[in-house]
Amino acid sequence: MREIGIYGLGRFGSFYASQLAGRLAVKAYTRNPERPVPAGVARIGEDELLALPVVILCVAISALPEVLRRIAPRLRPGTLVMDTCSVKTLPSAWMREELPPGVEILATHPMFGPDSAGEGLSGLPLILCPVRVSGEKLEQWRGFFSSLGLKVLIMDPDRHDREAAFTQGLTHYLGRVLYELDLKPSSMASVGYQRLLQIIEQTCNDSWQLFLDLQQYNPYTKQMRRALDLSLRAIDERLRSTPAQEEGLTPLGG
Amino acid sequence: MREIGIYGLGRFGSFYASQLAGRLAVKAYTRNPERPVPAGVARIGEDELLALPVVILCVAISALPEVLRRIAPRLRPGTLVMDTCSVKTLPSAWMREELPPGVEILATHPMFGPDSAGEGLSGLPLILCPVRVSGEKLEQWRGFFSSLGLKVLIMDPDRHDREAAFTQGLTHYLGRVLYELDLKPSSMASVGYQRLLQIIEQTCNDSWQLFLDLQQYNPYTKQMRRALDLSLRAIDERLRSTPAQEEGLTPLGG
Repeated sequence: MREIGIYGLGRFGSFYASQLAGRLAVKAYTRNPERPVPAGVARIGEDELLALPVVILCVAISALPEVLRRIAPRLRPGTLVMDTCSVKTLPSAWMREELPPGVEILATHPMFGPDSAGEGLSGLPLILCPVRVSGEKLEQWRGFFSSLGLKVLIMDPDRHDREAAFTQGLTHYLGRVLYELDLKPSSMASVGYQRLLQIIEQTCNDSWQLFLDLQQYNPYTKQMRRALDLSLRAIDERLRSTPAQEEGLTPLGG
Repeated sequence: MREIGIYGLGRFGSFYASQLAGRLAVKAYTRNPERPVPAGVARIGEDELLALPVVILCVAISALPEVLRRIAPRLRPGTLVMDTCSVKTLPSAWMREELPPGVEILATHPMFGPDSAGEGLSGLPLILCPVRVSGEKLEQWRGFFSSLGLKVLIMDPDRHDREAAFTQGLTHYLGRVLYELDLKPSSMASVGYQRLLQIIEQTCNDSWQLFLDLQQYNPYTKQMRRALDLSLRAIDERLRSTPAQEEGLTPLGG
């Protein structure tokens, strides 16, 4: 089995390590000695991990620059580094600039996590952005991720971020707004309302840091929030400009 | 089989008539002679319909006052009238005021329609608000609706509208706002994003009139929209007050 190293065992790193274990020999490093390591995953030290042929970074987007500077001088030529950040333009640029030319780079975005993969990985999207990687290795990893049942899409970082601002940025934004509303389960829940509650559950179990990073490090989420605001105003305006029929506003006089 | 009359064959009336046909002898009246009548439902005239023992009104909330004034003098004592409006406080009050004392009144809200009942009625909520109805008839109809697999809830109109402002008013409001955003299906759709698209589909097939009526005739939807606005502002404020780490904003200089 191919050996890979998972760098970082936060919520997503632990989940991802456990999903890959069994198919790959997964080793993991976390700077926090108290964090448990998932079953089937071997805990190793940072130096040992950086000597592996493949290093998968599972760290917060906002932590990536510091981690890259820390590991860059210790990576061997020929190592393949993948990130797993939920935005792709900035991490791709950071990796290209920080990692030595002999290190290969495949930016990735696994579009799932512990909450959405409850029924397995089948059909869930995983995005690959080839930053600096041989055609052969790209093909190898595309094949591997496909063999897990994932829907693998290859695209450039800019297109990823433009689409993800909506598919992901909007979903997480609304999830947080609805959470703030403190919606309650209701015996009167319609099918649509239940979907709203599911969206809250699925986005608000992720860390606030991930939410912040999605909104702040994707160059297109600001446009998304502005578009949402305009849509809200448009609907409110249509509501205001259509007065209720007079008799509707109060019980009839008879 | 018991005979009932469906008054109005719009989107919901047609759907409801076809759901009830087979279990009841369903007759229907629509003022529009070109509107098709669902299979198993007999088209009859207005006078004939108003002579039936049970009349179910399937008309827009905003049209109800006019319809009540039109039919009130022609209903026989002992007739049971049910409305099917998605708000309950005003329609209950209107029916109590407009319909002669000898006419029984059971306000209802079937919380489903052609889009949410795709997989059958089982488990979907139907609300009953007894306005002026004998315990015996209430029990009969509670039992009948339960026998269709519906989750029947009995409550007063005020509680209905308070909860429905969120379970239904919020869902339809967000559905319209998201429709306005012109979201596209995406190969990168996360599970949560697919739920957003489903909410659009499920709310925006209903008429704009229904949307307007839900927002304007439920006394609590204005509060709901205000609460949503406050939640949006709270999240935006938290985003603004947490600046992205400096190095995150532009590709690193190296």
